[in-house]
Amino acid sequence: MEDKNISQAVILRLPRYLRYLGELKDSNVERISSQELSELMKVTASQIRQDFNNFGGFGQQGYGYKVNYLYDEIAKILGLNKTHHLIIVGAGNLGQALANYMNFERRGFHFKGIFDQDENLYGKKIRDMYVQPMSELEDFVKENDIDIAVLTIPKSAAVKVADQLVKCGVRAFWNFAHTDLNVADDVVVENVHLSDSLMRLSYIITRNESEND
Amino acid sequence: MEDKNISQAVILRLPRYLRYLGELKDSNVERISSQELSELMKVTASQIRQDFNNFGGFGQQGYGYKVNYLYDEIAKILGLNKTHHLIIVGAGNLGQALANYMNFERRGFHFKGIFDQDENLYGKKIRDMYVQPMSELEDFVKENDIDIAVLTIPKSAAVKVADQLVKCGVRAFWNFAHTDLNVADDVVVENVHLSDSLMRLSYIITRNESEND
Repeated sequence: MEDKNISQAVILRLPRYLRYLGELKDSNVERISSQELSELMKVTASQIRQDFNNFGGFGQQGYGYKVNYLYDEIAKILGLNKTHHLIIVGAGNLGQALANYMNFERRGFHFKGIFDQDENLYGKKIRDMYVQPMSELEDFVKENDIDIAVLTIPKSAAVKVADQLVKCGVRAFWNFAHTDLNVADDVVVENVHLSDSLMRLSYIITRNESEND
Repeated sequence: MEDKNISQAVILRLPRYLRYLGELKDSNVERISSQELSELMKVTASQIRQDFNNFGGFGQQGYGYKVNYLYDEIAKILGLNKTHHLIIVGAGNLGQALANYMNFERRGFHFKGIFDQDENLYGKKIRDMYVQPMSELEDFVKENDIDIAVLTIPKSAAVKVADQLVKCGVRAFWNFAHTDLNVADDVVVENVHLSDSLMRLSYIITRNESEND
């Protein structure tokens, strides 16, 4: 990599590049120009070239990009060439939906365990896991080299469970609880606040309506 | 409002302000200074004042902000003083999780119907709705004044279903399918690409590891 100081905006766009390149791979496309990729993704070709220049460029002008190579390089930047071990805390509908989503595993994200405090769920089979009680959480994390915890629990429980998991060595959270986790700066948190997303949708609807009045 | 031209970044922050103000309301806090709000939310007080100045300021220097008033004003900007009628297309785990999340209704988002192509799910009760076949979709949308469609279906089906719904008058999509919808510019799409989110988490873990090497 030419430059380690890559803007957040570029990083936010990388998964979308990977998605389109994956589809091109699946369609056996071998090469694509920035112009063609631009039309497909509805961003400017100059934006694409700028983004890729952050990582040394990836391709030769005039020849276009090699799809397989570009896909692999972006996957590497995103850390998808490594295997991650995850647990899910919260075996409700959302936790089950995430556990059952096969594509995560293809990308190296392996769900190892799922936990809930509701004893009616204990032993329930979700994919190839059985729901375990919260009392098993700490031992399981230590014994199974867990690096990511997915929190699909109510916000009232999330902060406490996150603290507990950090003490057991978890350094990354995928947080669906509707609250900010107060963890140390070296712990990574990626929030998915669904209500916030729905409100942004509502904002744009409202703004469009008032513009059309 | 003083200025209609509000940056995307400010809009992205509004739901988070609302969340914290809601918690203050629930704790019966009546007034809060930008300094106190800053400590709570871990953003600078100057950022908060700048953000609020986009909407005329909301408060008097020295007196702090009235929590209830500020909450209501931000809710209004986000369009939460209106009622929205939603349908969910895709009654799998994720669709069910969203249907069962009570907080959306509190904010004015009412789920009116849920649809799936899997006939084993027809008639299944989810909250106060029964899963309906896709053949009922168009009539239901026209008869129930649906303004938002939530897509929790595989990407192979999403683009076609979105086109069908746009023809019936749906102007907004909350899209969980792992694809971009190709709809007209005046149709609003808020994407929740969960894989992209997980990849961003993976990127930060990988970057931190290489910095610590």
